[in-house]
Amino acid sequence: MTSEVKKHLLDIDCYSKEEILQILNNSKIMMEILNRRVKKVPTLRGKTIVTLFYEPSTRTRISFEQAGKILNADVINIATKESSSNKGESLLNTVLTIQSIKADIIIIRHPHAGAPYFLAKNSEVPIINAGDGSHAHPTQSLLDLYTIHNNSGQIDNLNIVMVGDILYSRVARSNILGLSTLGANITLCGPNTLIPQDFLHKQHLYKNITFEHSLKKAVKNADIIMPLRIQLERQSSGHLPNLQEYSKQWCITNDIVSLAKPSVKILHPGPMNEGIEISSEVAHGSKSLIQEQVTNGVAVRMAILYSMLNAESKMELER
Amino acid sequence: MTSEVKKHLLDIDCYSKEEILQILNNSKIMMEILNRRVKKVPTLRGKTIVTLFYEPSTRTRISFEQAGKILNADVINIATKESSSNKGESLLNTVLTIQSIKADIIIIRHPHAGAPYFLAKNSEVPIINAGDGSHAHPTQSLLDLYTIHNNSGQIDNLNIVMVGDILYSRVARSNILGLSTLGANITLCGPNTLIPQDFLHKQHLYKNITFEHSLKKAVKNADIIMPLRIQLERQSSGHLPNLQEYSKQWCITNDIVSLAKPSVKILHPGPMNEGIEISSEVAHGSKSLIQEQVTNGVAVRMAILYSMLNAESKMELER
Amino acid sequence: MTSEVKKHLLDIDCYSKEEILQILNNSKIMMEILNRRVKKVPTLRGKTIVTLFYEPSTRTRISFEQAGKILNADVINIATKESSSNKGESLLNTVLTIQSIKADIIIIRHPHAGAPYFLAKNSEVPIINAGDGSHAHPTQSLLDLYTIHNNSGQIDNLNIVMVGDILYSRVARSNILGLSTLGANITLCGPNTLIPQDFLHKQHLYKNITFEHSLKKAVKNADIIMPLRIQLERQSSGHLPNLQEYSKQWCITNDIVSLAKPSVKILHPGPMNEGIEISSEVAHGSKSLIQEQVTNGVAVRMAILYSMLNAESKMELER
Repeated sequence: MTSEVKKHLLDIDCYSKEEILQILNNSKIMMEILNRRVKKVPTLRGKTIVTLFYEPSTRTRISFEQAGKILNADVINIATKESSSNKGESLLNTVLTIQSIKADIIIIRHPHAGAPYFLAKNSEVPIINAGDGSHAHPTQSLLDLYTIHNNSGQIDNLNIVMVGDILYSRVARSNILGLSTLGANITLCGPNTLIPQDFLHKQHLYKNITFEHSLKKAVKNADIIMPLRIQLERQSSGHLPNLQEYSKQWCITNDIVSLAKPSVKILHPGPMNEGIEISSEVAHGSKSLIQEQVTNGVAVRMAILYSMLNAESKMELER
Repeated sequence: MTSEVKKHLLDIDCYSKEEILQILNNSKIMMEILNRRVKKVPTLRGKTIVTLFYEPSTRTRISFEQAGKILNADVINIATKESSSNKGESLLNTVLTIQSIKADIIIIRHPHAGAPYFLAKNSEVPIINAGDGSHAHPTQSLLDLYTIHNNSGQIDNLNIVMVGDILYSRVARSNILGLSTLGANITLCGPNTLIPQDFLHKQHLYKNITFEHSLKKAVKNADIIMPLRIQLERQSSGHLPNLQEYSKQWCITNDIVSLAKPSVKILHPGPMNEGIEISSEVAHGSKSLIQEQVTNGVAVRMAILYSMLNAESKMELER
Repeated sequence: MTSEVKKHLLDIDCYSKEEILQILNNSKIMMEILNRRVKKVPTLRGKTIVTLFYEPSTRTRISFEQAGKILNADVINIATKESSSNKGESLLNTVLTIQSIKADIIIIRHPHAGAPYFLAKNSEVPIINAGDGSHAHPTQSLLDLYTIHNNSGQIDNLNIVMVGDILYSRVARSNILGLSTLGANITLCGPNTLIPQDFLHKQHLYKNITFEHSLKKAVKNADIIMPLRIQLERQSSGHLPNLQEYSKQWCITNDIVSLAKPSVKILHPGPMNEGIEISSEVAHGSKSLIQEQVTNGVAVRMAILYSMLNAESKMELER
């Protein structure tokens, strides 16, 4: 990976293990700011952050917007509905336009895998991939890493179980890369049709990753269980059994959780289909870190924005 | 009403008479700020206000946005079209997500009556109801109270006439509560099908509220006439005669206004159907307070945000 | 033109030659601010800018938003989809509402030619026309003038060639007025059906404007070539041949560019249909000023906002 590419955040493998740990460390400082009564620091004053979302999103967009505003950046939102894309402008030209208004960072979500990579090659402005198709979602992965590390004090040697639609989950793909880099033992679990075959064949590339088709066996000794969002729009593709069947076999319920370690915690990238991939009791229960994930997401994105935009100067985090 | 519920603003009955008067009083201070050449104070610096609108709205959303920004809060807008609601996320989980990004207040408009009440029970963040179905719209009512009080120097004993679609008007419902609390004499007037039967039956609960089916009789001695917006989408329900018929019988024209007190003033919650419930001459005439209502709305919402977010510290309204 | 109308920016003829030159001069100062590491000045602190867009737009809206935020104004965006226009509110009442929340400037884009003129007559708040139908787009024209002046050191006596859909182009109409005022020699070129007949008949009103139907002849001696956006939605109207035919005859390619002066530069208002009215090689080539136009647009809009909002005080552009 060249240093030119490195200025962008396209997937979590843009960062080395040391860089990931640095982000997690900075996120702790950001969390302290986030918890202040006056949660505002001048760090990114005069910087412009543009969110360019070609898919609807609440949580990721407002998380970045909140992170940027707390750091005093100006945030400009572009949602597909109001973009010129219906005038036939190419994605690249839209990004060049945003670059030319002197944006300092572009946060893009796009339905096509790889779109941010293509843009990064042609953009002088740093690009953050906020989700591209079924491919990657590195800031979600970093917030998951932070949440796990913050809860368990480590990631190395933890047993992490991901359940469900691994095949179409950009969160799962980025998390597999990130967790593997930090030394976790990963178990993938779900219907055969939703397990990516390339992982099976490239298993040697990833440390400590295994497949287990029995959910009950998979969660045994789990430190963390991560049910993945079932994307209801996939149903017509034939990859998904009907939802009732899916839920019966793969839903993370209190019964399933009770088979794991007593200290087990539950993460979910959201938005949740309660009663399908996760029961409401688990989602809102004492073992759930799901709301913490959202809060951590703001802190982690603050740390990412800081590291990408403020690299030249020393940290200014005073009020 | 418990103090736990009181931190939210769900309807105007969340406030006692004294609290309403306090809001009106603070609104005057806010109006002075709003009229400054540099209309900006640091009061809510570092606070995050989220508007969550499940119905389209210009006036209410931008009024809150302007109020928040003048007080130096960060404002994050979520409109249904860009929310994750089309991914099937529940309303409650959306609110919990907003809570978890460390929002300090959530302003919600929702087509279903009662939605903000349900959310308030589950949210640690204060909720402001910015309109829920045909149920309540407390900040509109507070700005109407401020406008009347500012114009007449009092509300006690004033004769207020509301005309039209009382049944489906959240503004009318909240105003009946607020005006009645402050001692006004309220006359409701409109087609039989648009008068709520529960008010007829619970009339003993409200002081000084009467029904008058003749518009000419109703406006006699009126200090304030409030025509209500005819919601054109109700026509198909059979509650509305055709618009020409409606207009003929219920439109507030100069002829109708001339039957009231010489000092009579006209309010309308907007948006107006000119020529249907109000004539253009009246809407834009010398007796209209309609534009003042909009300006007052910003000041009143500043006062509300201040009271809900800044209760712990003393007022900081200096430049 | 009365001074009352002059406070608005409806078309470029709202400004005299001297006022245009003043805007271009101030834009240079604004460009210096835009290039700062911390691009933020307190000039418009406490001012509220509202963008009211009844047509989708990325570039113009974010250009104004960026310009306003750099000058420390608060920016409130209203896009048609979330406005109350679907509740039947009139355009004028929407503008009066925006005025009444104490907006300091309203930037409007509207599909109907003349809409901003009608509003300006009824608004106490300055209105900027950000594009009205096929009529005018004065801020685009001012940024084009700045770009040409900045590149060539002058506009007087330059040979400017506009190619394509002159008839439906608000950019062309405003540019013809502006360039003519500053003394350029303008050549219009394109299919007969897309040349406005009123210019042919009123040619005496414009200095130094000619028509040339041969593209090769038109670009000879050109200092600036401005291909205009083909609006694909016009095709059904019968004014446009099919796109392949159009492109064959009117596309600005390297071959066409090579017929002009060696110092020729290319401008395009965007968004571009690459391969139709302009080739990708030209669009992204060394003679293209298209990205500079976008950057200049922010500086020019900063200068415009400054001149309209800050006239009473002396320039405050220090950090």
